[in-house]
Amino acid sequence: MPLEALHEEITPPGLHYILTHFDIPYLDQTAWRLRVGGAVQHTLELSLADLLEGPVVTVPVTMECAGNGRSLLMPRPLSQPWRLGAVGTAEWQGVPLGYVLGMAGIDADALEVVFTGADAGIQGGVVQRYGRSLPVSEAMRPDVVLAYRMNGSALPPQHGFPVRLVVPGWYGMASVKWLAAIDVVVSPFEGFQQSVAYRYQEGPEDPGTPVTRIRVRSLMVPPGVPDFFTRRRTVPPGPVLLQGRAWSGGGTVERVEVGIDGQWIPAGLKEAPGPFAWRPWSCEWLAEPGEHVLMCRATDSTGACQPLDQAWNYQGMGNNTVQKVHVMVEEAAGPLSHP
Amino acid sequence: MPLEALHEEITPPGLHYILTHFDIPYLDQTAWRLRVGGAVQHTLELSLADLLEGPVVTVPVTMECAGNGRSLLMPRPLSQPWRLGAVGTAEWQGVPLGYVLGMAGIDADALEVVFTGADAGIQGGVVQRYGRSLPVSEAMRPDVVLAYRMNGSALPPQHGFPVRLVVPGWYGMASVKWLAAIDVVVSPFEGFQQSVAYRYQEGPEDPGTPVTRIRVRSLMVPPGVPDFFTRRRTVPPGPVLLQGRAWSGGGTVERVEVGIDGQWIPAGLKEAPGPFAWRPWSCEWLAEPGEHVLMCRATDSTGACQPLDQAWNYQGMGNNTVQKVHVMVEEAAGPLSHP
Repeated sequence: MPLEALHEEITPPGLHYILTHFDIPYLDQTAWRLRVGGAVQHTLELSLADLLEGPVVTVPVTMECAGNGRSLLMPRPLSQPWRLGAVGTAEWQGVPLGYVLGMAGIDADALEVVFTGADAGIQGGVVQRYGRSLPVSEAMRPDVVLAYRMNGSALPPQHGFPVRLVVPGWYGMASVKWLAAIDVVVSPFEGFQQSVAYRYQEGPEDPGTPVTRIRVRSLMVPPGVPDFFTRRRTVPPGPVLLQGRAWSGGGTVERVEVGIDGQWIPAGLKEAPGPFAWRPWSCEWLAEPGEHVLMCRATDSTGACQPLDQAWNYQGMGNNTVQKVHVMVEEAAGPLSHP
Repeated sequence: MPLEALHEEITPPGLHYILTHFDIPYLDQTAWRLRVGGAVQHTLELSLADLLEGPVVTVPVTMECAGNGRSLLMPRPLSQPWRLGAVGTAEWQGVPLGYVLGMAGIDADALEVVFTGADAGIQGGVVQRYGRSLPVSEAMRPDVVLAYRMNGSALPPQHGFPVRLVVPGWYGMASVKWLAAIDVVVSPFEGFQQSVAYRYQEGPEDPGTPVTRIRVRSLMVPPGVPDFFTRRRTVPPGPVLLQGRAWSGGGTVERVEVGIDGQWIPAGLKEAPGPFAWRPWSCEWLAEPGEHVLMCRATDSTGACQPLDQAWNYQGMGNNTVQKVHVMVEEAAGPLSHP
């Protein structure tokens, strides 16, 4: 998502970030079936029509890749080289996962629920379909949804057509696309994407800790105009409305501050479209000629705040270091920035 | 566009390639006006409602960035580092440009028509709005359209909302997005995107020749499954349907050949959805264990054929060298490739 798309509360499909580990599978929605099995009373095989008969929930969700900001870490972890655009907000509509699990009837000793996608390939030498698990308590949350609509339309192929999981508040790896199977298990899921990928690790030998909820973050629409090649920003002098959005999977965003050359001032905050969607913020700045560094920093209801300095980890996960936008304020950009 | 999206005749907006030189401008469609001026009888200022009252044309168009394939050239030209995904096909709907130019009445000495977008920034040290021209003869073609719909919906912001130019058969730089002004001129347009960018040059001092129509090209859906990190492909042994699409801005695609380890065999071709849209092709391959190199090569009605070896140029433009897909055929991939 290019950062100017922070203008929009709901990100259109073509601007919402996508991370596909393997290829996009092209699935036939009439042949598609969702198998629900494992530690359940009744195994199920559900068609899309079956899901459409269930209760309907619509959830606006800010989804972010756990690797967002990875390529800004030094030294640079080797994986998808995201800068700051691996985020987006969509309205997901579908049937609550808990309703389907209720139909199946979870056994008393169930520990986790495993989700397997139709996307397949090789990662870390392991031939696999993409798979992830959630603790039963998370899976039963009323806002966790088996989504068949995105922003009022059928899912686009790249967002998991015909049905995907959406886990509000968690980094995107939990929201398994092209859902093929749900298995309730009584011991921890050890699949590659759970036990090897998506870990906070100090180094390659460190087993690390799992990546789960989205860390608090704010981003700014970079003001002014870019240079095509360097992407450096030029801003005309005078009043500039700095604006952006802030979100957290851990709690409500309660404060956003804007840093102008190291001086922090509070931004105005507006309401989020839902508890797991971003809040818009804005702040006036009187731009004076010369070079400036603009930053933004959010704090959520748990007291979590974005760090000023990077918290490096081996896979480059959860990098919520404050965004720094370097701008040159000069008259030359004036005619372009005020169309 | 990830290459597996070659499965689809019409590329959804979120998979169709986008190249924005600067930021996406967020425009208000009610305030939006298109100014038509220069060497015309009547200057015009048209609203979106005015355009909607005109005749309607719908054109399926395969659009490709002139820089597609740039990062595969050696040495690697420095610009947007496309591999092979800078392409897509959409159905563009709008009013013929020639109708609007007819309303304005082009002067007899008119040479070119200049299109200016609302997108602005700095490139090559030049502060600019994105601008390009077309010869009058091209501008008057009945299939050149001022498009306000893409695949049946309003244009997404990143594709030029509310109105863009679409020039079927030309590389994408001609299809100016976020159209703000049309100026008819009596001398050649010398704007940056015409006279500096988008040139076939031997080196930085060479004035070069202009990039215009799309060179003939075919691409293949890479068979099998990828490795997440290396993107190397693994294919199960047995029959494999190789398939893809082929297009040319210079003529009709008349032949596609598939190369298997250097042996060329003809592919079957199906009809294109329109004269400027890609044709699907396919070919059966009996994959035997081991490493293989797969290629595809199209020839159009002008006799133009894709080169096997690169034709390097300084900006990395129009690189239609044949695609080479390296695959490893082995049993291990079997269960994943046949879901």
